[in-house]
Amino acid sequence: MIVERTRYDADELRAFVAHALVACDVREADARIVGEVLVASDLRGIESHGVARLERYYVDPLRAGAIDARASETTLSENATSLAIDANNALGHPAADRTMRRTIDKARTSGCAVATVRRSNHFGIAGYYAMLALEDDMIGVASTNAGPLAAATGGSQPMLGTNPFAYAVPAHDGDAFVLDMATTTVAMGKLEIAKRLGKPLRPGWAIDARGRATLDPDAGMAGALLPLGGFGVENGGHKGYGLGLLSDILCGVLAGGVFVPDMPSRYGLLEGAIVSHFFAAIRIDAFRDVATFKRDVSRLLGELRASEPAPGSERVYVAGDLETLRTREHREWGIGLDPVVVATLERTAEKLGIVPPAARTA
Amino acid sequence: MIVERTRYDADELRAFVAHALVACDVREADARIVGEVLVASDLRGIESHGVARLERYYVDPLRAGAIDARASETTLSENATSLAIDANNALGHPAADRTMRRTIDKARTSGCAVATVRRSNHFGIAGYYAMLALEDDMIGVASTNAGPLAAATGGSQPMLGTNPFAYAVPAHDGDAFVLDMATTTVAMGKLEIAKRLGKPLRPGWAIDARGRATLDPDAGMAGALLPLGGFGVENGGHKGYGLGLLSDILCGVLAGGVFVPDMPSRYGLLEGAIVSHFFAAIRIDAFRDVATFKRDVSRLLGELRASEPAPGSERVYVAGDLETLRTREHREWGIGLDPVVVATLERTAEKLGIVPPAARTA
Repeated sequence: MIVERTRYDADELRAFVAHALVACDVREADARIVGEVLVASDLRGIESHGVARLERYYVDPLRAGAIDARASETTLSENATSLAIDANNALGHPAADRTMRRTIDKARTSGCAVATVRRSNHFGIAGYYAMLALEDDMIGVASTNAGPLAAATGGSQPMLGTNPFAYAVPAHDGDAFVLDMATTTVAMGKLEIAKRLGKPLRPGWAIDARGRATLDPDAGMAGALLPLGGFGVENGGHKGYGLGLLSDILCGVLAGGVFVPDMPSRYGLLEGAIVSHFFAAIRIDAFRDVATFKRDVSRLLGELRASEPAPGSERVYVAGDLETLRTREHREWGIGLDPVVVATLERTAEKLGIVPPAARTA
Repeated sequence: MIVERTRYDADELRAFVAHALVACDVREADARIVGEVLVASDLRGIESHGVARLERYYVDPLRAGAIDARASETTLSENATSLAIDANNALGHPAADRTMRRTIDKARTSGCAVATVRRSNHFGIAGYYAMLALEDDMIGVASTNAGPLAAATGGSQPMLGTNPFAYAVPAHDGDAFVLDMATTTVAMGKLEIAKRLGKPLRPGWAIDARGRATLDPDAGMAGALLPLGGFGVENGGHKGYGLGLLSDILCGVLAGGVFVPDMPSRYGLLEGAIVSHFFAAIRIDAFRDVATFKRDVSRLLGELRASEPAPGSERVYVAGDLETLRTREHREWGIGLDPVVVATLERTAEKLGIVPPAARTA
C-alpha cells in the first residue's frame, strides 16, 4: 500500500495547531505548547499522537465544552521535592509542560522531585515531558493514565489505559536514551491498521469481548488490548499488566484524580478531566560528575549499538535512536502527512474559519 | 512430575542461613539480613532466589574470596535526597537493606530520595527492598543490574542481565501492590526446567547463539534470553529491552559501578563486585492523606480483583497477590523444599561443619 504523503514544515504545522486552538478560545501561550508537543511527536515519527489528533482529541472536545479552553492549572500543594497540580480540565499539554518544568526546577534545588497532575486531558507523547529533563542534565520520568482499553492478565474486560511510561537519560554530546512505551503490547492503532490491510493480528495483541485470545481485528477492537508480554503469564503478560496498573496508581490515585473504578467503561473523548499524569526528575550530579556520567551512558549505548545484530536485523538500536533518525529526516525532508491526516487538518481549518497549513513546495 | 518436598519452618531456615554465613566469617548482623531476604523469597514462592542459592551464590564465592566476608559498605556521597554507596564487594543483601532504609529515612524528611550501590553482589529479590517502604507508608522502588544473559532487540548476543524492577505501594489494612519483575520474558531457570522436562521453549523466550529464535532449551541456554515482549519489535520486545537497559543505566552507570561494556561476557559467580543497585522512596503524604490514598489503592486493586475473569482463568489477581497467598500458606504449612535444594543445604552444612536445618516434624 503506497500512500502519497504531503510534506509540511514543522514550523508551519506548529503555527497551524496554535491558530486552531486560539480559534477555540485557548490562550496563545498554551496553544503554542500544544503545537510544540504534537509536532514533536510527528517529528519523532509517532504519527498516531501528532497533528492527526488535533481535530478529534482537542478541537472537537474544546468546541463541545468537554475540555475547558480558558482553564489553567492550579497548585494543590507543594514542597521542596513535590508538586500536586489540578489541571481544572484544561488541555493536558500546557499543564504537563509547566508541571514538568517546575519538577525539574525543584530537582535542581533538592536533588530529586516528583509531581502529579489530576483532572487533565490527553497530553500527547509522554516522552516529550521526560525529555525536558535532558536540557538540564537530569533523568526525566513521565507517565499518564487513560481510558480503559487494556485487559488485566486473566481478565476479560478492558480495565486499564495503554498507560505509558517514558524515561529520558542524557548522554554525551547531545546523545540520549529515551524510552517511551505504552504498557500494552501494541496500541489500538495497530489493530485498526490490520483491519484496513485485511491482515490477522499477531498472537499476544488482543482478546475478544469474551476474553479469548483473538487474531481477528474486529473481535480485538470489540474486546481489549493485551498488556506487554501478551496473553496469560507464560510470556510475562502479568508484567505489562503490573506496569499499567502502576501507572494508574502513580497517576490516578497519587494525584487524587480519576482511576479505574471511576473511569468511564469505554472511554469517550467528550468526557473531560478524567486523565492524570505523573512526573519525576533526578539530578545526576548528586551521584556522579555529569560529564563523566554522560560519557559512560554513551559508552553503554555505543556498546549495544556496535553489538552483533541477529540474522535479519540490520543493526542494534537503543531506545530513542529511531525517533532521533526520523526527527533529522523530518527536519530536512519535511513531515509527510498521509491523506487522511491532511483531510482532518483541512476540515479543522474549515470548521474554525482559519487557513489550512501550507504544504512544502520544494 | 511429583516432587517429594521436605517442610521447614521459616525461622529454622533463617537461622541456618545465618549460621552458614557466620561460618564463612560474615558478621552476624549481616548474616541475619541475608537469612531474612532469602527466606522472604521462599515464603513468597520465589524458590529460585531463596535458600536454593545459598551455596552457589554466597557460600562458595565467600569461601573462594570472590565476595569479601568482612567488608561493609561505605558512603561515597550523600545529601538530603540522595545517597551513593560503595558495597566494597560485601554481600549484596546487607548493603541493599541498609541503603534502602536510609533512602526511606531521607524520604521521610525530604519527600523523596534516590540511592545507588556500586561494587555489590547478588542481593536476592528486588521486591524485598521495595517492600521495606511499605512499613513507612511510602512507595518503594528497587532495581539491580546483573551479568549478561539477555539479548538486545535485534541483537544476537547476551548483553544485559535479567535486570529486575520492583515497585511496592501500600494499600488499606496491610494490603499492597508489589510488582517485582525481571525485564526478560522469563528467567534462565525456565529454560532449565523445560530441558529437565524434555519440553520445548515457548516462542519469545530465547534465541540461539547465532541470534535466531529457538524453541530448543539447549540452544536457548547457549544463546540468550529475550526481553519482555519477546523476539523483534512486533510484540514490544524493544520495550522490555529498553527497561533492561534503563536498569543498567540507573544501577551500573549512575552508581559508578560496572555496566555492560565492562561486564564479564558470561557471568561467573566467582567474580565479585560487578553488580550495582538502585533504590527510591516517595512519601505519599506530600500528595494526599495517606489513609485516603491507601483506601483508594485498595479500591483500585479490588476493582481489578472483582473483574470478570477470562475463560480458563479462575480470577484476576494484582501484582503481589499470589506471593501474599503463598506467604500465608508457607507460614502455616512450612516452606517445602525439593530434594535438590535439601541436598545443597546438607552439602553446605557439611562443608562448613555446621548442623543442617531440621525439617518440620508435624
